[in-house]
Amino acid sequence: MSTPTITPSPLDRTAVQARVEAALDEFLGDKAESAAAAGLPADVVDAVRSFLFAGGKRIRPLFCVLGWYAGGGGEPTDAVLRTAAAVELFHAATLIHDDIIDDSDTRRGQPTVHRAVADRTRAARDHGAATRFGAHAALLIGDFGLVWSQELLHTAGLSAAQMAAAAPILDVMRTEVNYGQYLDLTTTGQPTHDLDRALEIIRYKTAAYTVQRPLQLGAALTGAGPEVAQALSDYGQPLGEAFQLQDDLLGVFGDPAQTGKSNIDDLREGKHTVLLALALRHATPDQRAQLDTLIGNSRLTEHEAARCRQILAATARPKVEQMIRDRWLQVQRTLAHAPFPPTAIAGLRSMADAVIARTS
Amino acid sequence: MSTPTITPSPLDRTAVQARVEAALDEFLGDKAESAAAAGLPADVVDAVRSFLFAGGKRIRPLFCVLGWYAGGGGEPTDAVLRTAAAVELFHAATLIHDDIIDDSDTRRGQPTVHRAVADRTRAARDHGAATRFGAHAALLIGDFGLVWSQELLHTAGLSAAQMAAAAPILDVMRTEVNYGQYLDLTTTGQPTHDLDRALEIIRYKTAAYTVQRPLQLGAALTGAGPEVAQALSDYGQPLGEAFQLQDDLLGVFGDPAQTGKSNIDDLREGKHTVLLALALRHATPDQRAQLDTLIGNSRLTEHEAARCRQILAATARPKVEQMIRDRWLQVQRTLAHAPFPPTAIAGLRSMADAVIARTS
Repeated sequence: MSTPTITPSPLDRTAVQARVEAALDEFLGDKAESAAAAGLPADVVDAVRSFLFAGGKRIRPLFCVLGWYAGGGGEPTDAVLRTAAAVELFHAATLIHDDIIDDSDTRRGQPTVHRAVADRTRAARDHGAATRFGAHAALLIGDFGLVWSQELLHTAGLSAAQMAAAAPILDVMRTEVNYGQYLDLTTTGQPTHDLDRALEIIRYKTAAYTVQRPLQLGAALTGAGPEVAQALSDYGQPLGEAFQLQDDLLGVFGDPAQTGKSNIDDLREGKHTVLLALALRHATPDQRAQLDTLIGNSRLTEHEAARCRQILAATARPKVEQMIRDRWLQVQRTLAHAPFPPTAIAGLRSMADAVIARTS
Repeated sequence: MSTPTITPSPLDRTAVQARVEAALDEFLGDKAESAAAAGLPADVVDAVRSFLFAGGKRIRPLFCVLGWYAGGGGEPTDAVLRTAAAVELFHAATLIHDDIIDDSDTRRGQPTVHRAVADRTRAARDHGAATRFGAHAALLIGDFGLVWSQELLHTAGLSAAQMAAAAPILDVMRTEVNYGQYLDLTTTGQPTHDLDRALEIIRYKTAAYTVQRPLQLGAALTGAGPEVAQALSDYGQPLGEAFQLQDDLLGVFGDPAQTGKSNIDDLREGKHTVLLALALRHATPDQRAQLDTLIGNSRLTEHEAARCRQILAATARPKVEQMIRDRWLQVQRTLAHAPFPPTAIAGLRSMADAVIARTS
């Protein structure tokens, strides 16, 4: 149970990513071996592995490790890295289910799990049956991811005290992201100018889940107290909101070749994003009528999508960009007074810049 | 965090069920309160609660408590009952997902979760959109069940030693049931006379998950050693197989008014059951041709289902009933020499009788 001993500096994101990936690879290797020994199909492990290694920025593991540094931890142990890897595996499971719900065809530039399974089975089934089979297999593959992330966590080698500190944060995190997904589902297709609800979705679905909780998890593993947890929250919440606001912009204005995902799906589904809420709020009556007709139309053409982008760019994009900048400034103010070691501050500052400036 | 202090004897199934339900009720009450405090929709907790309290025999919690007695535990503590309740919550989540995969309309005599959600939303969406929304909401509601079962487990009040003993059993159990579901999915609609594969599905999907692992979980909480675990396996595996064989019979020959579930869905889906494998093996060419045409036809009429039942009754039902009796005898032989206290033996014997004789 050893992972390669690459030594990361707090800012060496590549090294952290490599150690997380090694932990995932080792865990899935064990799962593949036991499946083979029991005569069970290899496709479950293969699907989870392909999904995990098709890409992904490992942003939650990186924040987990940064939380560890912020709490005063030194060189992160293998147990910390495996805990971070467990969060990444949980995330993969969440995305596999999310792709079913959004009926997305691609993720990380590859076919989504449900789509890949459906495509493989089209020779043997009619179109509708293959599509259903793909969704149902992916549902189960996501369930495997959820239970395996739990197994990876409690075989990570954490002490009983670390487990006890980590568990409540993970419980809150998992409930929050599920509520975020649920709010997302129930509002999709019925976007309104309700900015508060759009921000609430962001907070549950991303700000807490992607940034704040992984940071607090890492800090909890050092035994850090509430002052550190609070400062990480003051850093993580605005940064997480900025991350999702940026994601919403990329989901409409991004280049699929760079982001690895469609820039038309959000419009076709009618995602209740801050971008759209602001557009509906500030549109002229004519623009608003056009948005009402076009957004949420599952057969939206590229030409109609371009028209949507024009209206969104004119009415809301600069406002969203301003919101991102405001949050970035809030992050800077937090870091100026945060009770973290200098290396942690440097790492957190560099992650914040990367999150804000990202194009994929 | 107290549950009512009803004192169960090892055979008092009603008392155990009541304590498990009290633990679930309390946990979900806390979840409802925090959702309300955060302005989150109440429907997630409501859906999980309705599903859990629409019925269910609490068979896994009962086996968990019986395992505790078998390991020499005395009166089960609240922590043991909460652990048993966590298994029941995991099971509810698994069933919610299973019902999506099987496209089942009813469970426990009530609309399934995805169906209930779809029905509630039909006024606002067209038929297809409402059906998809129901499936997607139920997928997330099942995910809530999965993560909440984990939270209920590690807030159950177990000692660190008990947690360490329980975790590997739960990991194995969760992986096994997922593989069982996966095998079930990949073979459904393509039933064959492959009896070994049908038995393998039963072992993963039910024998281990419903009987053997819950028993071993309860025993692990007492600190019992491998001899007890082995004897529980020798009891649990055949009993679990008998349980599923009985379930397959009820799924075809049962009275929906008593079982609370359809007696035609398995035929329409073409479930790869032992019953069907044996029928395909022992049918005359004419019977086999009829089964090949009828089984797996999603529009099977009641009249055609009656024809299937006739053929299955003539070719396979007595053989399945004999398999159930063989397993029951194996259970009796194990109990005659098992290293369990007399009260545990009595409880295990009575559960075995109830499982074999059940009509619902």
